[in-house]
Amino acid sequence: MRQLKLSRAFTLLEPGPVVLVTSRDGRRNNVMTISWTMVVDFTPLFAITTGAWNYSFAALRKTRECVIAIPTVDLLDKVVGIGTCSGADTDKFARFKLTALPAKIVKAPLIGECLANIECRVVDRVLRHNIVVLEAVAVHVDSARKETRTVHAVGDGTFIVDGRRIDRRTMMASKLPVGL
Amino acid sequence: MRQLKLSRAFTLLEPGPVVLVTSRDGRRNNVMTISWTMVVDFTPLFAITTGAWNYSFAALRKTRECVIAIPTVDLLDKVVGIGTCSGADTDKFARFKLTALPAKIVKAPLIGECLANIECRVVDRVLRHNIVVLEAVAVHVDSARKETRTVHAVGDGTFIVDGRRIDRRTMMASKLPVGL
Repeated sequence: MRQLKLSRAFTLLEPGPVVLVTSRDGRRNNVMTISWTMVVDFTPLFAITTGAWNYSFAALRKTRECVIAIPTVDLLDKVVGIGTCSGADTDKFARFKLTALPAKIVKAPLIGECLANIECRVVDRVLRHNIVVLEAVAVHVDSARKETRTVHAVGDGTFIVDGRRIDRRTMMASKLPVGL
Repeated sequence: MRQLKLSRAFTLLEPGPVVLVTSRDGRRNNVMTISWTMVVDFTPLFAITTGAWNYSFAALRKTRECVIAIPTVDLLDKVVGIGTCSGADTDKFARFKLTALPAKIVKAPLIGECLANIECRVVDRVLRHNIVVLEAVAVHVDSARKETRTVHAVGDGTFIVDGRRIDRRTMMASKLPVGL
């Protein structure tokens, strides 16, 4: 995987794909499926909604680190499988045959099979809404990957695959962040 | 437009489409383009990131009401146009030929051209991150609309259109909210 500059990290989450969030509690890797994510700032800062109902949450709270991995459509059944079992009784990296790669800065692992991996540190929590605010500290992208279509969870058990891309860069020029 | 039950409102935002947010300052309607949104709870609660850099923010803060309208791909040039001018000097409903329809509960208008409209009340703000937390109070869907594909902003001036839908309802059954 090659590193992507931090100023582009928000473009991986802004389209709203379902993501995998990895953590490491000191001994074991774990991973959860999340689609409640939001860009909060270009710096980049992200918000995710998660709480004690996710087993990963304890490791995230304790270590204040995670990796947001972006899966593509060929991984959908793993994504759904990861989202419907618990790290409390399952080694999800083993069960779903995911390759845990060492991250550059955080201890949580990258997922080798994913299109992109964003190393994050917890910088704040909004307890009353179960919102965790994350700062990206490194970004990796597999630029050799042929399948690059992400998927969007609808929330009713269906998922929408990326279709075609429309370019409005000229119309948007005045609004794009500097250094993109 | 027909009303949709509130328990399904989150399924309109969970896939991460770019949205329009309408407001009414007491005299004039306004609308802004946003893609920094997140589901926070099934109840349904949503978070959006916005602040004083959007002219609409003053009306949102004062009235504590808005409508999240979901546009489809045929409206993309209006969506980009709305996002690149300001309500400070532009009547965007007139300029982009949007039909302001009366909402059921809030004073902000629905947009007649959109696939869906979610009437919202501001229930909280997280000032340090410019996060506004909204509760949906009514949802309307245009079920006669032929074009139903939404678009996802990448953030670099390009947009991804919805592609095909994949059904994993059986695999997901244990995780779907009751009353969906």
